[in-house]
Amino acid sequence: MTITRAACIGGGVIGGGWIARLALNGIDVAVYDPHPEAKRKVDEVMKNARRAYKRMAAKGLPKEGKVTYAASIAEAVKDADFIQESVPERLDVKLKTLAEIEAAAPADALIGSSTSGFKATDMAKDMKHPERFLVAHPFNPVYLLPINELVPGEKTGKAFVERAKAAYTSIGMKCVVINKEIDAFVGNRLLEAAWREALWLIKDGICTVEELDDIMRYGFGLRWAQMGMFQTYRIAGGEAGMRHFMAQFGPALAWPWTKLMDVPEFNDELVDLVATQSDEQSGKWSIRELERIRDENLVGIMEALAKAEKGKGWGAGELHNAYVKQLGKAAGKKVSKAAEKAKAGKPKKKGAAKGKRG
Amino acid sequence: MTITRAACIGGGVIGGGWIARLALNGIDVAVYDPHPEAKRKVDEVMKNARRAYKRMAAKGLPKEGKVTYAASIAEAVKDADFIQESVPERLDVKLKTLAEIEAAAPADALIGSSTSGFKATDMAKDMKHPERFLVAHPFNPVYLLPINELVPGEKTGKAFVERAKAAYTSIGMKCVVINKEIDAFVGNRLLEAAWREALWLIKDGICTVEELDDIMRYGFGLRWAQMGMFQTYRIAGGEAGMRHFMAQFGPALAWPWTKLMDVPEFNDELVDLVATQSDEQSGKWSIRELERIRDENLVGIMEALAKAEKGKGWGAGELHNAYVKQLGKAAGKKVSKAAEKAKAGKPKKKGAAKGKRG
Repeated sequence: MTITRAACIGGGVIGGGWIARLALNGIDVAVYDPHPEAKRKVDEVMKNARRAYKRMAAKGLPKEGKVTYAASIAEAVKDADFIQESVPERLDVKLKTLAEIEAAAPADALIGSSTSGFKATDMAKDMKHPERFLVAHPFNPVYLLPINELVPGEKTGKAFVERAKAAYTSIGMKCVVINKEIDAFVGNRLLEAAWREALWLIKDGICTVEELDDIMRYGFGLRWAQMGMFQTYRIAGGEAGMRHFMAQFGPALAWPWTKLMDVPEFNDELVDLVATQSDEQSGKWSIRELERIRDENLVGIMEALAKAEKGKGWGAGELHNAYVKQLGKAAGKKVSKAAEKAKAGKPKKKGAAKGKRG
Repeated sequence: MTITRAACIGGGVIGGGWIARLALNGIDVAVYDPHPEAKRKVDEVMKNARRAYKRMAAKGLPKEGKVTYAASIAEAVKDADFIQESVPERLDVKLKTLAEIEAAAPADALIGSSTSGFKATDMAKDMKHPERFLVAHPFNPVYLLPINELVPGEKTGKAFVERAKAAYTSIGMKCVVINKEIDAFVGNRLLEAAWREALWLIKDGICTVEELDDIMRYGFGLRWAQMGMFQTYRIAGGEAGMRHFMAQFGPALAWPWTKLMDVPEFNDELVDLVATQSDEQSGKWSIRELERIRDENLVGIMEALAKAEKGKGWGAGELHNAYVKQLGKAAGKKVSKAAEKAKAGKPKKKGAAKGKRG
């Protein structure tokens, strides 16, 4: 499916990233977020995303979709064929939000959840149409990082998973479907494992956050931007490949090389330590500057990978080539009426509703 | 210090990478590796490294150092001022090797160990001059990835650490000194944590090795090539920064988001599963092809990061700018006599000794 009209429920760091990706693909987005500063925050994300897409638009960009702010979930979702939920990570809040979405949304609208860890089955337990719901978990910044973990629940329709995959792929994403449900899925489990160990290293005074970050970005982080863990280790096995690597390093699993048997106690002292060291590392840049630097680097890396293999591209670079081409193709197409209207400066009803909020 | 004459003990994947980095910096290297095919294997690494450095040599390259093969550790180290040990990861082998190195090396030669996990203090326990020994742990491919974890032992000299830092920095590396000893240091603890969790995900059938790798290289791997974990999360905290991030995600530490309480049983079944999936993912490329692709991607990513911040460069890219400049500067300099001789095609004694090995 292609997306005609999107609704984003929640406009934080992740929700804002979805709004930006959708709008920059020429899709109109209705937003609901009760936060009094939601629009300002989304605008900041949009600004970053526009800068990044401008650089990526070697072949043009579609006319930006119109972003409107609705006074309620019901208003935001009522005409949508694509609904992305990105509210805070509490199951009760997720359940309440999904109930409100379902009560007003078209019965066949796609509903994806940005949850970092809950299972679709648990979130869908009270839904009337759980067959059109699944987890669609992106990574920050959503408008640039292509990955999307699609995790269907027990009642998600088989055909619907394919429809969802097509929808997310149509906005430049790389979908990996995870068919066995597990808390936190794949990406966040790996991140959580590394994060726990990282906190131990900081807490125990082995290194500072800056030293740890440097070990990543001058070391294995460069590897993981283009090959993951297993492909990298296949090479490390040398001519004998993966079996050799496993035989050589497998036994190390039993060595006490991590503290992960324990969870570091999360107290004020640890928060202070990390926050203070983080200020020393990055305090010279504002968050906005860091976002700009990050985005320019991410686009730069994807462009570098796009030139690989004689211009065919590799990994995220191969996808980047296709995405840039697709954005350019869409630039030539007729845009939606709503976008035309918006361009002409005529405020829409939903835009007017904004004043009611917060 | 700058390095005048290097010895590399062990010519495997890591040792070969050291040899290539040193030789391409114009330094003569004496190698000892009892493996009958050591020279062929090192030559393969040199071939890869030459290809990568050729691309990096925008400003020229120094005349390549001469690589000679010694018949014994004693012969390899006797004239060296820089000795890098990269033998298999067994403490008894390390101790025996270090004893042989010390018996023949100049008393003030730098001795660095490539160990992935042993503490310098444990390795130096029988050394006569432990003050000039430390762990210098690189990541594969050593000739391209800049990171070097320098971990002094209890008896390592304070001034010596600075000397070692200068030596490794002189061949383009980014040194992070870790002053508190811990098995596996920092990088490998993070890798081990992620690796354990990854094996659980494969063993439990949540995803395949290809899917897991894709989630990395289309997702957080792209982030970690340019900012590490803490700087990335600082941004994720949004305008409220690191304290907000910690407060928001800290409690998740206690959730059952990893299986790291347990170590996955390392049996034939798991090795088969991973190796078979790895063949499906990467079997269409030989290890040599994968190495070429990886190296081109790594150089491409570093070049992209080198253009960041209006050409000043960011992270590994900033270092890349300096390294390319430095290689070019060295290209103008007079090269060592040994290198001249080698260039003239006159075989050296050590080269002749090669036939005795294996």
